Amino acid sequence: MTESAAWGQGLATVSDNATILDAWFPAPHLGSLPADADPQKVPAELAAYIGEDARRAVRRDFVTIESDFDEPPASTVDAYLRLHVLSHRLARPNTINLDGIFALLPTVAWTNAGPMHPDDAARLRPQLQQAGISAHSVDKFPRLLDYVVPPGVRIADANRVRLGAYLSPGTTVMHEGFVNFNAGTLGASMVEGRLSQGVVVGDGSDIGGGASTMGTLSGGGTTRLSIGERTLLGANSGIGISLGDDCVVEAGLYVTGGTKVSLADAAPTAAGIAPIVKASELSGRHGLLFRRNSLTGAVEVLQRTGDGIRLNAALHA
Amino acid sequence: MTESAAWGQGLATVSDNATILDAWFPAPHLGSLPADADPQKVPAELAAYIGEDARRAVRRDFVTIESDFDEPPASTVDAYLRLHVLSHRLARPNTINLDGIFALLPTVAWTNAGPMHPDDAARLRPQLQQAGISAHSVDKFPRLLDYVVPPGVRIADANRVRLGAYLSPGTTVMHEGFVNFNAGTLGASMVEGRLSQGVVVGDGSDIGGGASTMGTLSGGGTTRLSIGERTLLGANSGIGISLGDDCVVEAGLYVTGGTKVSLADAAPTAAGIAPIVKASELSGRHGLLFRRNSLTGAVEVLQRTGDGIRLNAALHA
Amino acid sequence: MTESAAWGQGLATVSDNATILDAWFPAPHLGSLPADADPQKVPAELAAYIGEDARRAVRRDFVTIESDFDEPPASTVDAYLRLHVLSHRLARPNTINLDGIFALLPTVAWTNAGPMHPDDAARLRPQLQQAGISAHSVDKFPRLLDYVVPPGVRIADANRVRLGAYLSPGTTVMHEGFVNFNAGTLGASMVEGRLSQGVVVGDGSDIGGGASTMGTLSGGGTTRLSIGERTLLGANSGIGISLGDDCVVEAGLYVTGGTKVSLADAAPTAAGIAPIVKASELSGRHGLLFRRNSLTGAVEVLQRTGDGIRLNAALHA
Repeated sequence: MTESAAWGQGLATVSDNATILDAWFPAPHLGSLPADADPQKVPAELAAYIGEDARRAVRRDFVTIESDFDEPPASTVDAYLRLHVLSHRLARPNTINLDGIFALLPTVAWTNAGPMHPDDAARLRPQLQQAGISAHSVDKFPRLLDYVVPPGVRIADANRVRLGAYLSPGTTVMHEGFVNFNAGTLGASMVEGRLSQGVVVGDGSDIGGGASTMGTLSGGGTTRLSIGERTLLGANSGIGISLGDDCVVEAGLYVTGGTKVSLADAAPTAAGIAPIVKASELSGRHGLLFRRNSLTGAVEVLQRTGDGIRLNAALHA
Repeated sequence: MTESAAWGQGLATVSDNATILDAWFPAPHLGSLPADADPQKVPAELAAYIGEDARRAVRRDFVTIESDFDEPPASTVDAYLRLHVLSHRLARPNTINLDGIFALLPTVAWTNAGPMHPDDAARLRPQLQQAGISAHSVDKFPRLLDYVVPPGVRIADANRVRLGAYLSPGTTVMHEGFVNFNAGTLGASMVEGRLSQGVVVGDGSDIGGGASTMGTLSGGGTTRLSIGERTLLGANSGIGISLGDDCVVEAGLYVTGGTKVSLADAAPTAAGIAPIVKASELSGRHGLLFRRNSLTGAVEVLQRTGDGIRLNAALHA
Repeated sequence: MTESAAWGQGLATVSDNATILDAWFPAPHLGSLPADADPQKVPAELAAYIGEDARRAVRRDFVTIESDFDEPPASTVDAYLRLHVLSHRLARPNTINLDGIFALLPTVAWTNAGPMHPDDAARLRPQLQQAGISAHSVDKFPRLLDYVVPPGVRIADANRVRLGAYLSPGTTVMHEGFVNFNAGTLGASMVEGRLSQGVVVGDGSDIGGGASTMGTLSGGGTTRLSIGERTLLGANSGIGISLGDDCVVEAGLYVTGGTKVSLADAAPTAAGIAPIVKASELSGRHGLLFRRNSLTGAVEVLQRTGDGIRLNAALHA
């Protein structure tokens, strides 16, 4: 049974102009806040970090929060707890209500010394430089690794994975990989392409370098995609449909829902040609190979036999 | 009327071997240096930062400079003022003379504590590590966010936008986006692809993940491209021609100037086939849809009706 | 004659749980350790950096090591010396035994203050933030620039080049470029695409933005690719075969070994059509242009005459 609530205690960062910039929860829990918990009592390991950080023009406050997953997030701190729950692998992508999260997250300057308000980052530039503090991002979402270090996972470039990503042990996100919040891997996978918000990848799959998965936040897509197990998205390929297990999309081929594909190994139609369907009709099927015939230019699909790919064990130990 | 000059006062960084590494101008101005300005008088807010930084083997000097936009930049400091003018949105891309800028910009090691000479970065490596200073780049151009934090803009990965980029309020540059100097957005846009030097994008457009725009610095292009309003470059697509308003290039399709495209919805030729033109002849036209027919492999263009795309307002608030 | 050994003296970082995280060699040498060298004698310039760094829960130890290139690396420190030898341009890619290197390299949290154990990065998060220390990567391989600053090279984004890359003077790795360990450039080149492990690029070549080269570590490739001189991989293109000198792969085209290509300018076959071969049969040939015919969708190859591309000298000075 999926829990419908979570709670956490942590530190929120508040800018001098009273904007709540973030919240960090070292150990979020599923379930409701225990009846005997004292929301004001600061755990010893956090106490030392409460207070002002003049370099960034912020202070850190202690926070206790409970999130009700049946409702949209109600505050910045609530939104941060939900992102932590995903990245601590307590709940899978698409199982928590995140409606309206963009409006709850302010735009923040993310630095090596923590978050600060973008106006302050501009205003305090010379003293920040002197203090060795610089912004690696000005965005609504922080980097995963600044909040959670998921065990058994490699992330070659911290800038490419947002807090709220769900990464399973054995996953490697290479330099060209990207994982948005509420997206991720359900097993060991190689991610060298881009996982849009809502996209989940099954065990043993390989998202090739520069591969694209269509999302629902921008560009017009409305369906959240999934990718099965032992499936390969070739380098520079892309999908606008879901893929089942043991599928391959050839390097360089983009298959959208509207792509008309020729069923190259099916029985011919009465007209003597291969049947043609829209790719969206094949969404989620297992064992398909998508390719573009390099002599005719037609996009074809063939039924594969046997298992899909096998990852290189040395890279996912 | 476009101003033909700008001036600024700021701080230059000079390495121990007397290389001028950069200059930072907190508030550049259009127009000529006021007659009553004293180029030697250091503003109070900068005075504290003048002097040596032994960690980086540099010193910071006060500088006052005027740039004449009818002439090429004359020095490193002049070049930096022009890049600031662009990023402060005081002048649009392609309106300022930047000829010869590469030769004026030394290669610099860019660190979280500011610029330093690459030879010093190599030589001083252990003490830099001890001081928590590391280089995120060795390049001629710095990151935009280390010099200017443009209001109303999100930049998910600071490493992907160079100083000299012109980004309008409401613009989001996602992790896979890239904006070179003298390139940018004239309104609210989603940038998940790469804007080469000289490329400008109109309001309401979406440059999809991994999309490419051909530039003029390398690879042989000679024309600076522009992209109109409400236009979509699909993920992993690319263009070597300009696009007008309300256009769409299908995901995964690369249209170069030399691509022969079939006018699929035009009246057939005498031979009974669709007319064929080079894509360069369609450069800058409005309301075009470019796609590759997935059954025949032919690149086709169709006339679209009505407006182009609409951005997700939550992402560009 | 290629040397079959190298030696070096440097500093290793060891975490509190006794994991050897890395080793840094300021000046690695080819050949065997000199008979009169004292492996215990710490050079003066390193002595100050030996000892504990409590912020990261590590200590730094002095190390002396000799690597036998006829054998696989025998330890973490041995593996690091080999990566240094490549990045100091003492030995070209594919000339040093690196078998089993993944198993020898622990997963490390790479910060602006040096390496630390990922468990410690999670555990010590609040004090690290206070100290301005943050992880830009959790991976087996560090960034090149944190260990070696190769003279005459620009690397726009340090996160995109691993230690073990071999970059020749005049090379520019742009923001979208990527160079793995045991890969690189043998002359001045523009790298805006991804060089997989084992891939080498000749002088004067241009790897376009987002271009992909198939590797042997994941995705199933078994052959290490090479790219000749004055050759252009267009933006968003890709190859699964080697290219000789003066070749061009059109923007957006992916040529795998299995791609059937039409020899468009060869004498027709008896059937009156252009001969067709698998692209793997053309691997390494000079002066080829690969393109997809935009009217028929067929992948074609043509023989080019004269030299290939010329780089923009201003970008590679």
